[in-house]
Amino acid sequence: MKLEHVLIYGMGLMGGSLSLAIRESFPNAKVTAVVRSLRSKQSILEKKLAETAFTLEDKENIDFGQFDLVVFSTPVASLVSLIPSLPKGNSTIYMDLGSTKQTIVEAVDRHFGEYEHNYISAHPMCGSEQTGPEAAIPGLYRDKLCILTKPKHGSQFAMEFAKKFWETIGSWTISMDAKVHDETLAYVSHLPHVISTILVNVAGKNETTMDQVASITRPITGGGFRDMSRIAGSNAEMWISIFKENKTFLKHSIDDFIEQLTIFRNLFLDETNLDEAKIKSIWDLALKHKETIQKTK
Amino acid sequence: MKLEHVLIYGMGLMGGSLSLAIRESFPNAKVTAVVRSLRSKQSILEKKLAETAFTLEDKENIDFGQFDLVVFSTPVASLVSLIPSLPKGNSTIYMDLGSTKQTIVEAVDRHFGEYEHNYISAHPMCGSEQTGPEAAIPGLYRDKLCILTKPKHGSQFAMEFAKKFWETIGSWTISMDAKVHDETLAYVSHLPHVISTILVNVAGKNETTMDQVASITRPITGGGFRDMSRIAGSNAEMWISIFKENKTFLKHSIDDFIEQLTIFRNLFLDETNLDEAKIKSIWDLALKHKETIQKTK
Repeated sequence: MKLEHVLIYGMGLMGGSLSLAIRESFPNAKVTAVVRSLRSKQSILEKKLAETAFTLEDKENIDFGQFDLVVFSTPVASLVSLIPSLPKGNSTIYMDLGSTKQTIVEAVDRHFGEYEHNYISAHPMCGSEQTGPEAAIPGLYRDKLCILTKPKHGSQFAMEFAKKFWETIGSWTISMDAKVHDETLAYVSHLPHVISTILVNVAGKNETTMDQVASITRPITGGGFRDMSRIAGSNAEMWISIFKENKTFLKHSIDDFIEQLTIFRNLFLDETNLDEAKIKSIWDLALKHKETIQKTK
Repeated sequence: MKLEHVLIYGMGLMGGSLSLAIRESFPNAKVTAVVRSLRSKQSILEKKLAETAFTLEDKENIDFGQFDLVVFSTPVASLVSLIPSLPKGNSTIYMDLGSTKQTIVEAVDRHFGEYEHNYISAHPMCGSEQTGPEAAIPGLYRDKLCILTKPKHGSQFAMEFAKKFWETIGSWTISMDAKVHDETLAYVSHLPHVISTILVNVAGKNETTMDQVASITRPITGGGFRDMSRIAGSNAEMWISIFKENKTFLKHSIDDFIEQLTIFRNLFLDETNLDEAKIKSIWDLALKHKETIQKTK
């Protein structure tokens, strides 16, 4: 596929890593970046993550129509405010890397109305606790899932372009309806981030635990806690944005969690007996679901 | 330190790995194992995890007094039923690898009464989702924390022996009171295992999620879910035993979790406003606690 001029609007870890992936798979493509600060602009040019960089102040001078591909890598809220300014009727392909889809697709539908357009919403399922273009990772998108969501009047051409683009940089793709995406992601991504964060705060509030933590110079936790807390508290701004966009499904997933945890907790109410068979069945079910979800069996 | 005859009573992953560690650090020590089945006995002898192996049926023929060190690597409930049969007054050092301490230490105190004895309860903070001696890992204990709990009348000699033993095989040690151990472990280990298991079951019960999972051949989950579910549903028998022994602290930790999760959930009740500052403060607190607990700052 041909790719000569790409605009990456917002160049943090995701956008920066995308630039590295484009440089690898499309060595002739020129990358232009839009960033927030002069400092970022300088750092991006120094690291050669883009040939040209604009700050937000210059953004009026950007002609979207001159690019083959424009990728928005900004929080969803900023993106939604940008969509109404997209030119209609040119051949530029638009994409975003948003973590939720309903709000984006609604804004796209509203903006383009009945016109066929080339906007496809993408969600590459990868990332890092690190932030900023300095943390850009070569190969971040390799072997990762990228979910593609086609708005109602998105063109088949744009959808095929998007699929081919992501596959060329090494991702594998599936298409998902916006609502299905947001509900599924609440359960497999947003809820896990909430749970990890709360877990750390629960341990952090227990005085006995924190006294022990303070009494020694090395961590008292094993691999279980380490894994369970890796994503805790990371990237607050991004998560607040995701939670806002997906609050209905997130609430449902939290309620489901509280419900199942309360059932488990109540197995211990009886001081003398413990329903071991019930715990065993909860454990076995988790093992089965884990294998199904992670395709290990 | 001198170590010639070691008995490892119960040889699964932990006991088998301990045998490998002893072979490395004490090449002259002879290891004897007690196992449940003839099949295990055969497999252990074939893999040279022990020079001699007894099944439970032969256990009457074992003279604890002939060993320098006896390590119990059985579920806590089996251990507690074994403690009353320990001979008093010999120089053998007794240890266990139990994941909870109060029940064990109470049984030890009850059995030895006012006599000074050589029983030290140890909790090496490591493991694996795998089970059985076939899964024994060389170096499992290297660079891991081993918590040592001295019962009221445990000898200083035994405590020093235990410390030196674990340090020789590469662990680092701290001593902890039994009750403090059980409360701390509820928060940094037992609760995380419950949370991981419930999380997988919550995702597994959501139809939209499972429809998407079923629709494709590769996992739709990212690194977050993978890490958060790694310990889910593993080793049901062991965990049921731990939960039984530590149910009061486990209940407290679950209640704390439900309380903090409910507070978070209620931040989303207002359909129009979201208390972003509050979410930010929860996220920042988690980051701070994570750094403190894991000593990364």
